[in-house]
Amino acid sequence: MLKAKIFVRLKASVLDPQGKAVTQALHQLGYSNVNDTRVSKYIELILDETDHSKATETINNICDKLLANPNTEHYEFSLVEVEKP
Amino acid sequence: MLKAKIFVRLKASVLDPQGKAVTQALHQLGYSNVNDTRVSKYIELILDETDHSKATETINNICDKLLANPNTEHYEFSLVEVEKP
Repeated sequence: MLKAKIFVRLKASVLDPQGKAVTQALHQLGYSNVNDTRVSKYIELILDETDHSKATETINNICDKLLANPNTEHYEFSLVEVEKP
Repeated sequence: MLKAKIFVRLKASVLDPQGKAVTQALHQLGYSNVNDTRVSKYIELILDETDHSKATETINNICDKLLANPNTEHYEFSLVEVEKP
């Protein structure tokens, strides 16, 4: 079995309103030395697959079809082997 | 300047409805070998601070006060040095 660790982030050119809101809230709480907050998704999933190249293809498809918005987001992932639970 | 890379995850004992929804959607798309999806937040922010122990204290406070819900979530983070932009 493989565990996929997937980051889905807004492209650098895309405004991150959630990140802006966090920065503003932190400034209001007195943390004026915090800036450039970016909020992303981090997704872990278990793949019942042992072949790394097949798993890579599957995760690319999953990200393209469901997890990431190709217009505004990009993704990256790594695979680690895990024991069956 | 330091960049903080913060993961905010649901505790293992807490149901992750977003993760369940992703698993179901993937099954419907034909990816029946995917299971146990967990969706977390990944936050990056820039701290105008050079002292690692002060930065660690600040990020702990920020997570406790704003970024994580202590009832249902836990967090972990790392700090990396970055150049001034």
